[in-house]
Amino acid sequence: MAIANTASSVISSERVRGTDVYNPAGDKLGSIDELMIDKMSGQVRYAVMEFGGFLGIGTDRYPLPWDTMKYDTGMGGYVVSVAKEQLENAPRYERAAAPEYNDEYGRRVYDYYGVPYL
Amino acid sequence: MAIANTASSVISSERVRGTDVYNPAGDKLGSIDELMIDKMSGQVRYAVMEFGGFLGIGTDRYPLPWDTMKYDTGMGGYVVSVAKEQLENAPRYERAAAPEYNDEYGRRVYDYYGVPYL
Repeated sequence: MAIANTASSVISSERVRGTDVYNPAGDKLGSIDELMIDKMSGQVRYAVMEFGGFLGIGTDRYPLPWDTMKYDTGMGGYVVSVAKEQLENAPRYERAAAPEYNDEYGRRVYDYYGVPYL
Repeated sequence: MAIANTASSVISSERVRGTDVYNPAGDKLGSIDELMIDKMSGQVRYAVMEFGGFLGIGTDRYPLPWDTMKYDTGMGGYVVSVAKEQLENAPRYERAAAPEYNDEYGRRVYDYYGVPYL
């Protein structure tokens, strides 16, 4: 637990936006736009990604289950192991048209990435 | 778990600031300025409070262990059960002079409120 609580391991909700996201090969895929946090438990449920056109998939927002993200201290960002093909049909929305993050939507997102929705 | 994942139960990191905080009697104490989130686990570790002068304690920021906060759906905000006297000597800082949230500081904050630092 010592590692998880070092100075570099907390991030302010005010500074989440723009955190880099990479694929396992180390290529930058984009950045985090926002985190969706469970109000009760305080656990992050989704990282909402902006892929910045890198994959030619425009500027839509992609919610990913938190468990698909792994923080890499060396890179100073998150590594996500999803293939380009997987993103092509992934749940997404225009930033100005965010859906309600209810159970139905949450389940759809989690199911899409094969993560159990608890 | 159904309740914890309803639409109203996630909040965007972009909308955390300004969430109301009450005492158990229902009096508004202030609001959340920011949340400090563990980068690895995605678990909120601290809610940084702004008490807005209500208690006559100025506009310093007060980090509280997440476990002292309880979300109240009816009130649409958090209820925190700390007495005014407890806040008078609580760890605080000016917004522009935020400390490093390292183990030493974290332990001090958690110890002050009697919450185990894990």
